[in-house]
Amino acid sequence: MMNDCIFCKIIKGEIPSAKVYEDDKVYAFLDIMPVNPGHTLVIPKKHSENIFDTDDGDLKAIAVALKKVSIAVKKGVKADGINIGQGNGRAAGQAVFHLHFHIMPRFENDGLEMFPQKKYREGEMQQVAGKIKSFL
Amino acid sequence: MMNDCIFCKIIKGEIPSAKVYEDDKVYAFLDIMPVNPGHTLVIPKKHSENIFDTDDGDLKAIAVALKKVSIAVKKGVKADGINIGQGNGRAAGQAVFHLHFHIMPRFENDGLEMFPQKKYREGEMQQVAGKIKSFL
Repeated sequence: MMNDCIFCKIIKGEIPSAKVYEDDKVYAFLDIMPVNPGHTLVIPKKHSENIFDTDDGDLKAIAVALKKVSIAVKKGVKADGINIGQGNGRAAGQAVFHLHFHIMPRFENDGLEMFPQKKYREGEMQQVAGKIKSFL
Repeated sequence: MMNDCIFCKIIKGEIPSAKVYEDDKVYAFLDIMPVNPGHTLVIPKKHSENIFDTDDGDLKAIAVALKKVSIAVKKGVKADGINIGQGNGRAAGQAVFHLHFHIMPRFENDGLEMFPQKKYREGEMQQVAGKIKSFL
């Protein structure tokens, strides 16, 4: 637990939240600023900042909870689809530095575009893959 | 394995890919249409369509691989941050119906906005939470 972490305070009940799920490792509650109603955050009870410093055990528990809660969110708000999202670092839009996965209900023609994609230049892709592989 | 699935063909080597990582359950390769160079897809070797129908064992292996590969992507392309993303259903932007998690490198001021968020109406949030909890 981190004393100055808003999500740790939510887990402890010091700040109210619209909780939808909880188990021994994971807590899930509605984001107060949803992309669509039903937008839920899944977080580990044990404080970690992002995906880089989270224990494998917590990541596994989150993955299983993401499936379980996504199914409930989809049914609960009668969504047509679900996006999972997660940000690491301010450059990735992370604003609260306690790991959180977003479960975002989507509806046909809701106008959201999550991942605007573009093309590689000739030869660029293999070069980039080589750089990543050098760290694996 | 699904005969008509492009990602199953990539895993089998029938379609080339810029592979960056592989273990017994997981395969990771560069998305040919990146949000930024280094955009990587992490997929289970055993075909599943989305998060709803994927085995917990595969989800756990993917979660651990997401951490490992994200660290390498961040280092490999010297990214400032990393977004994780995943879509379930056409309404969520899913185009290939073999489960895939996106690892998306982010850079300061790259202009991307992943999750445009808004506000609940008075009382709406608790109502929505109740609907979701009824399926958990």
